[in-house]
Amino acid sequence: MEPKPQPPVILELITYNREEHDRHDGTSQTIDELLRNQKANCVNWLNLDGLSSLDIIEKVQSHFCLHSLLVEDVLSDQRPKAEEFDDYLFVTLKMLYRIDGTAIDYEQISFVLGRNFLISFQEKEGDLFDGFRERIRLDQGRVRKKEADYLMYRLIDIIVDNYYNVLDRIGEIIEDIEETVYENPSNKTFNRIQKLKKELIYLRKALYPLRDAISKIVKGESEFVREENLRYYADVYDHTVHIIDSLDTYRDLTSSLMDIHINAMNTRMNEVMKVLTVISTIFMPLTFIVGIYGMNFDFMPELRWHWGYFGVLGAMFLIVVIMLGYFRHKKWF
Amino acid sequence: MEPKPQPPVILELITYNREEHDRHDGTSQTIDELLRNQKANCVNWLNLDGLSSLDIIEKVQSHFCLHSLLVEDVLSDQRPKAEEFDDYLFVTLKMLYRIDGTAIDYEQISFVLGRNFLISFQEKEGDLFDGFRERIRLDQGRVRKKEADYLMYRLIDIIVDNYYNVLDRIGEIIEDIEETVYENPSNKTFNRIQKLKKELIYLRKALYPLRDAISKIVKGESEFVREENLRYYADVYDHTVHIIDSLDTYRDLTSSLMDIHINAMNTRMNEVMKVLTVISTIFMPLTFIVGIYGMNFDFMPELRWHWGYFGVLGAMFLIVVIMLGYFRHKKWF
Amino acid sequence: MEPKPQPPVILELITYNREEHDRHDGTSQTIDELLRNQKANCVNWLNLDGLSSLDIIEKVQSHFCLHSLLVEDVLSDQRPKAEEFDDYLFVTLKMLYRIDGTAIDYEQISFVLGRNFLISFQEKEGDLFDGFRERIRLDQGRVRKKEADYLMYRLIDIIVDNYYNVLDRIGEIIEDIEETVYENPSNKTFNRIQKLKKELIYLRKALYPLRDAISKIVKGESEFVREENLRYYADVYDHTVHIIDSLDTYRDLTSSLMDIHINAMNTRMNEVMKVLTVISTIFMPLTFIVGIYGMNFDFMPELRWHWGYFGVLGAMFLIVVIMLGYFRHKKWF
Amino acid sequence: MEPKPQPPVILELITYNREEHDRHDGTSQTIDELLRNQKANCVNWLNLDGLSSLDIIEKVQSHFCLHSLLVEDVLSDQRPKAEEFDDYLFVTLKMLYRIDGTAIDYEQISFVLGRNFLISFQEKEGDLFDGFRERIRLDQGRVRKKEADYLMYRLIDIIVDNYYNVLDRIGEIIEDIEETVYENPSNKTFNRIQKLKKELIYLRKALYPLRDAISKIVKGESEFVREENLRYYADVYDHTVHIIDSLDTYRDLTSSLMDIHINAMNTRMNEVMKVLTVISTIFMPLTFIVGIYGMNFDFMPELRWHWGYFGVLGAMFLIVVIMLGYFRHKKWF
Amino acid sequence: MEPKPQPPVILELITYNREEHDRHDGTSQTIDELLRNQKANCVNWLNLDGLSSLDIIEKVQSHFCLHSLLVEDVLSDQRPKAEEFDDYLFVTLKMLYRIDGTAIDYEQISFVLGRNFLISFQEKEGDLFDGFRERIRLDQGRVRKKEADYLMYRLIDIIVDNYYNVLDRIGEIIEDIEETVYENPSNKTFNRIQKLKKELIYLRKALYPLRDAISKIVKGESEFVREENLRYYADVYDHTVHIIDSLDTYRDLTSSLMDIHINAMNTRMNEVMKVLTVISTIFMPLTFIVGIYGMNFDFMPELRWHWGYFGVLGAMFLIVVIMLGYFRHKKWF
Repeated sequence: MEPKPQPPVILELITYNREEHDRHDGTSQTIDELLRNQKANCVNWLNLDGLSSLDIIEKVQSHFCLHSLLVEDVLSDQRPKAEEFDDYLFVTLKMLYRIDGTAIDYEQISFVLGRNFLISFQEKEGDLFDGFRERIRLDQGRVRKKEADYLMYRLIDIIVDNYYNVLDRIGEIIEDIEETVYENPSNKTFNRIQKLKKELIYLRKALYPLRDAISKIVKGESEFVREENLRYYADVYDHTVHIIDSLDTYRDLTSSLMDIHINAMNTRMNEVMKVLTVISTIFMPLTFIVGIYGMNFDFMPELRWHWGYFGVLGAMFLIVVIMLGYFRHKKWF
Repeated sequence: MEPKPQPPVILELITYNREEHDRHDGTSQTIDELLRNQKANCVNWLNLDGLSSLDIIEKVQSHFCLHSLLVEDVLSDQRPKAEEFDDYLFVTLKMLYRIDGTAIDYEQISFVLGRNFLISFQEKEGDLFDGFRERIRLDQGRVRKKEADYLMYRLIDIIVDNYYNVLDRIGEIIEDIEETVYENPSNKTFNRIQKLKKELIYLRKALYPLRDAISKIVKGESEFVREENLRYYADVYDHTVHIIDSLDTYRDLTSSLMDIHINAMNTRMNEVMKVLTVISTIFMPLTFIVGIYGMNFDFMPELRWHWGYFGVLGAMFLIVVIMLGYFRHKKWF
Repeated sequence: MEPKPQPPVILELITYNREEHDRHDGTSQTIDELLRNQKANCVNWLNLDGLSSLDIIEKVQSHFCLHSLLVEDVLSDQRPKAEEFDDYLFVTLKMLYRIDGTAIDYEQISFVLGRNFLISFQEKEGDLFDGFRERIRLDQGRVRKKEADYLMYRLIDIIVDNYYNVLDRIGEIIEDIEETVYENPSNKTFNRIQKLKKELIYLRKALYPLRDAISKIVKGESEFVREENLRYYADVYDHTVHIIDSLDTYRDLTSSLMDIHINAMNTRMNEVMKVLTVISTIFMPLTFIVGIYGMNFDFMPELRWHWGYFGVLGAMFLIVVIMLGYFRHKKWF
Repeated sequence: MEPKPQPPVILELITYNREEHDRHDGTSQTIDELLRNQKANCVNWLNLDGLSSLDIIEKVQSHFCLHSLLVEDVLSDQRPKAEEFDDYLFVTLKMLYRIDGTAIDYEQISFVLGRNFLISFQEKEGDLFDGFRERIRLDQGRVRKKEADYLMYRLIDIIVDNYYNVLDRIGEIIEDIEETVYENPSNKTFNRIQKLKKELIYLRKALYPLRDAISKIVKGESEFVREENLRYYADVYDHTVHIIDSLDTYRDLTSSLMDIHINAMNTRMNEVMKVLTVISTIFMPLTFIVGIYGMNFDFMPELRWHWGYFGVLGAMFLIVVIMLGYFRHKKWF
Repeated sequence: MEPKPQPPVILELITYNREEHDRHDGTSQTIDELLRNQKANCVNWLNLDGLSSLDIIEKVQSHFCLHSLLVEDVLSDQRPKAEEFDDYLFVTLKMLYRIDGTAIDYEQISFVLGRNFLISFQEKEGDLFDGFRERIRLDQGRVRKKEADYLMYRLIDIIVDNYYNVLDRIGEIIEDIEETVYENPSNKTFNRIQKLKKELIYLRKALYPLRDAISKIVKGESEFVREENLRYYADVYDHTVHIIDSLDTYRDLTSSLMDIHINAMNTRMNEVMKVLTVISTIFMPLTFIVGIYGMNFDFMPELRWHWGYFGVLGAMFLIVVIMLGYFRHKKWF
C-alpha cells in the first residue's frame, strides 16, 4: 500500500508548557523553518496530515533521526503495535470514522514519542483532535501541566473513546436488524447481517493487536512514558479490553441473527409447503370424484339418479369439511 | 453512558466495631455533616445509591482523595475489575436482578476499600444487602469482629451468591424449553431459545472479567486485604469459577436446544412432504384412469361392457390398496 | 442445593496400621463416643454417608477444627477442587454411578486429609469402596503399610477408575447409535444422541476441574501428601487426562452422529421428493392427453378414427417408457 | 482393556556394541536364562511381543525393579507419555498399522530405557522394526556406535516415520473423495467421509499426547538421554509437530468435504424441485384448458366452431412455448 | 517427498564486501572448484537450485560440516523452523508463487547461516531474488555494508513480502466471489469458494510455523545473528504476524461467503417452491370446477342454462383474481 499521491501534506506544530502556547502552520513556511520553531522547555507536537510528500517525510526523518524501518511502517499499512527505539517510542494504530450505514472508515495514525516531542503521522486531513487542540490552547484540564507522554495518552484515549461510538452504532444496528429479522426475513436483512459481520471481522483485526500494543506500554518497560502516567495508559488498556469484550458480544449476537434469519426462512418454507399440501390434498380427491362421473360408460347407474349430481356435490362438501378438520387438528393453519 | 439525572442520591453511613454500631442517613444532613460522623476506630461503610449528583460525588472524591480516573470509572459503564491505588483498592462489578421471564437486569456497583472505610457506589436505589445490614446491626456472624476488607468480601459474596439464583432460574427455563421443543417446535419456542442465548452472552460478559478481578485480589498483592481474609476471597473466586462452568454448560445446552428445534422443524417438513407425496401418488394415477374413460373416441370397447364401470372402480380400489401397502412398507406413515 | 433432609447419617470409623485393624459403626454409639475410638498411631478413616444432620457435622467440625468455609463447601454443590488449609488438605470431587440407559448419577464426595486421619463426606448411602474396605481388613495390597495420604489416593483412584466404566458404556452407546443412525434416522435416535450429548456436557463439568485439582496435589505443594506417594497421584492425574481425552473424542463422535442423522434425514427427504416428482412428471402429461380427447368439440377427427383409442393408449405407453428411461438415466431410482 | 489372553509371549534379546552383536530367542529358553545373556558393556534390547503371560512380565518386573504403576501402564491402554523413574525412563506410545480402506490399526508399545538396556513391550507379534534389526546386525548406520538412548530414538523415529505413511494414505483418500463428491454425492461418499473423520479423531488422540511426551524428553530433564542425542529427539519432535499440522489440515479438508457433500445434495434437491415445478407449471394450465372444453354445457359456442379444436391445440402449444421461454429466462434449465 | 530427480543442480556463489563483488557460476566448474572461490573477508552466498544431485549435496555437507539431520531436513518436506547448530543457524521456510486462478505454488527454501557464509537450498530453478542480486552487484542499499545475517534477513524479507502479493490476490478473489455469490449462487461459485478455502488451509500450514521460527530468531538467542540486526528480524516478524492476521480475516470472510452461498441457494429454492404452490393453488380449484361440469349426470340444471358456460368462466376468473390478491398480500411475488 503506497502513500496516496494527490493531497498535499498539511503540517502543524504546537508547542506548549505551563506558561506558553504556540501554534505554527506548515502552509506558510517550509518544513525546515517549521522545525526551527521547536522549543527545548516545551512539549513539541508535530502533526502531519497526508504522507504523499517523501521530501517532507525525509526531512522529518533526518531531523529526528528516525529509523528507516519506522518510516517504512508509517508509510505502509501496519497492524497496531508499540515499538521501543533508542531515542523514541513508536506507536501505530487505527483511527476509526463512523460513516453512514454499516461501513466504517479506517485511517492509520502513527506516533513517535520522544523526550519532549510527539510526532503524529496521519494518512488523511481531518481528525478527531480539534476539540482537544482547543483545550490545550485554553489550558483546560491537565494537559499543559504534563509532558509529551501524557499528550500521547490523551490522543490515544480520544481515538479509543471514539471506538465506543462506533460500537454503540453497531449495537443499534444489531437491535434494528433483530426487530426486522423475526418478522421479515428478506434477503435485504440477510445482506445487512453479512455486512455487519464483515465490519466486525475488520474491527477485530484493528482491536486485538491494539490491546497488545497498549499492554506493552502499560508494563512500564518504555523509558519515554513516565511511571506516574502509566495509570492513564492502564485506563486506556481497560477501555480497549472492554471494547474487545463488546466486540465479541456483538459477534455472538450477529451469529444469533444469522440463526434467526435461517429459522425464519425455514418457517416460511414450511408454511408454503403446507399451503401446497393442503390445496393438493383437498382438490386431488375432489377432481378424482368429478372425473369418475365424467366417464362415458354406457352403464353407470348413478348418472341416471335424479339427485345424483347434488348427492355428489354434497359428498364432496363433506370431504372438504372433514379434511379441513383434520388439518386444523394437525395445527397446519 | 452518563449518570441517570432524575432520582436523588441516597446516602447512608454505617459505622461499627466490636462494641458500637451507628447508622447515619444522608437525607437529614448534608454530605459534609455525614462524613464528619466517621470514626477512626470503626469500620466506616459509606453507601451511595444513585450517581446523578456530581456535587456529592465530588465532595466524596475530595474527602477520600479519589483519583479522577476512578471517579470516571464509577460513573461510566465498566467491565468488572480490581485496581490498586495508593490509598485504596478499587473494585467494580455487576449486581444482577432476576426479573420475570428470561430478562436479567444489571446494575453496576463499585467499591473503594481503604484502611478503615468502604465506599459503595450503586446506580439505583435498592440492593441485595438489606438482610446483611440487619445482621451487622444485631451483631450476628463474624462481621462486627472483622475489618473493612471482610465487609467488602461479604458484600461481593452476597452479589455472587445471587448469581446462583439467576443461573438456577436459567436452568429451569432450559428444562422448560426442552420439554416443549421436542413436541412443539413453534416459533415461540425458538424465540425463547434466542432470548436465553442472548442473556447468556451478556452474562458471560459480566462474569469472565469478574473472575479475573477477584483472582487479582486472591493473589494477595493488595495491601488493603489482610492475609487472614484471603481465604474468603478465594472462596468467592471458587464460586465465580463454578458459576462460569455452569454458564458454559448452559451455553452448550442452549445450543443443543437449537439443534433439537431445527431437527423438529425438519421432521415436520418431512411429514408434510410425505403427506403431499402420498396424496399425489394415490390420486394422480386414479385421475388418469378416470380421464381415460372420459375420452370421447367413437370406438372404445370397454365403455360398452356392462360391468366396465364397476370393473374400473374395482381396479382403482386395488391400486389404492397396493399403494398404501407400499407406503406402509416404506414406513411413510 | 441444600442437604437432603430425610435419610439418617451413617457413620463409620476404620482405624488401622501394619498390626491392627478396627471398625466402629456409628449406629450403636454417639458421634462423640465414635470419635474417642481414634488411635494416634493408626490411620483413622471416618466416613459419613448423608449430610442431613447438622448436629453431627458440627461435632465433626469442632473435633477436627474444620474451617467454616470448608463445611459450607461440603454441604453445597461444588466444582471439584483441592484446597490446602493449615491443618489438613481438603479435596472435593464427584463420584459417578452408571445407571441404565444413558443417564449418569452424580454424588459429591469430599475428603479432609490430616496427618493421621481422613474424613470422607458422602451425600448418599452406598459407595464404590466396599471391596476396598475388605482389602484393608484382610491386609491385601499395600494400604496397611501406608499412611492416610495413600488411603486418600486409593479412594480417589477407585472413583476415577469408575469413570472408565462410565465412559466405556458411553462408547458402547455411541457405537450402538452409529449402527442405527445410518439406516434408520428416526426421531428416537436423534433424542438418544441429544441425551448423550447432554451427559457429555455434564461429565466435562465434573472432569475438567478434577484434573486441575489433582494437578495441584501432584505439584507437591501440600505437606499432607508425602513425596513418596506423589507418583501415585501422578498416576491418577494421567488417568484423569486420559479420561478427558476420551471425553473429547466422544464429544467429536457425538457431533459426527448428529451430522450423520441430519444427512440421513436429508437423504430421505430427497427420496420422497423424487417419488413425488417422478409420479407427477409421468401422470401430468398423461392426464393432459386423455383430457384432450375428452373435449367435446364437434370437429375432432381423431375421435372418429377406428384405432384412435388404442393409438392414444400406445402413445401414452411410449411416453411412460421414455420418461422412466430418462429418470433411470438421471439415477433417480 | 485387559491383555489379550491367547497368543504366547515372544521374547527376544539383542545385545550389541561396536564390536559384538548377539541375538537370543525366548522360544528356546526360559525368561531367566534369557535375561542371563545380558552383557554389561553392551546395549541390551529386550523385546516382548504379547502381554498375556503375567508370569513373564513379573519376572521382567522383578529383574529390572520396575515400579508396579509402570507395569500397570504397560498392561492397560494408556495415552502416550514419558515418565522419569529413579532407574529408568518410561515411554509409551501407539504404533500404527495402515490396513486397507480407511481403517487404522493401533498397537500400544512401551519402552523402558535404563543406562545400558532398553525393554520394549508390544501387544501383538510383528512390528515395524525388522529392517532396523538387520541394520544393527550388519552394523549399518550409527546405531552400533551409540548407546541405548539412541536405540530408543531410532525405534520411536521408525514409528513416527510410519505415521507419515498413514497420513499420506489419508491425504490420498481425501483427494479421492474430493473427486467423487463434486459430481456424485451419494450416501456411500458421505459414509467414507464420516469414517475418515472418525479415524482423524482417533489419530489426534494418539498424536497430541505424543508431542507432549517427546517434548518432555527434548527439554533434557531425563538423565537417561545423553545431551548429545537430544538433537535426535528434537528431530522426532519436529516430525511429530509436522504430522499434527498435517492432521489438522486434513481435519479442515474433511470438514470441507462435508460442506461440499451437503451442497451437492442441496443442488440436487433444487434440481428435482425445479423439474417438478416446470412440469406442474406447464401441464396444470393445459389440463385446465382441455377440462374447459370437456364441460357439457348446452351452450358453448367454441365447441361448434369448425377449427375450434385445432385452435385450442395451437393456443396450448403457444402457452408451452411461452412458459419454456420464461423458465429458460429464469435459468431453470 | 523425495528430491525430484530430473533437473540438474544449478550452483551459484556470490562473494561480496564493501569493496569487492564476485559471482561464480557452477555450470563451468565443479563444486570443489566453486567452493575454493570463497573469500574469508567476504560474505559468501552459495545458492543451490535443485536438490537432485546427492553427490553435490554431500560435498557441500562435508565442506561446511553440516549435520546429517540438517541435510535430511533440506531434502524432505519440512514445516518452517529455525534451529541453532554449533557452527551455523538453520532456517527452512516456504517460498510462494502465485499462479493464475486460485492455486498457489509452494517451494521449500532452506538457509544455513554461518559466520561469513549463507547457503540457500532451493527445490527448483528460479526464485524471487533476481532484482536483489542486481542490487548487491550495483551496491544499492545497505547490503554490501552488512554481514551474512543481514543477507539472510533480506532474502527472508523478500519471501515474506511476496506473501503480501499472494494475500492481496486472495483478497481480490474474495471480493470477486462476493459480487457474484449474492446474485448468482451457481455451483461454479461454490467450487471457487471451496478452492479458496483449501488454499487458505495450506497457507496457514506454511505461515503459523514461520511466525514461531522467526520469533525464535528475534528472541536473540542465536549467536549468528548480530544484535544490531535483530530489529530487522523483528520487522519481518511483525510482517508475518500481520499476514497471519489477514489470513484469519480471509478465513472468516470465506466462511461468510459460504453462508451467503447457502442462503442464496435456499432463497432460490423458496422461490421455486412458491411458483409451484401458486400455480397449483390457482389451477387445482379451476380444474376441479371444470371437472364438475364435465360430469355426465342426467340432471344437472346448470348445464341447461344459457349463460351457464360464461357464468362459470366468469366465476373462475373471479377466483383467480382473488387468489392472486391473496398471494400478493402474502408477498409471495
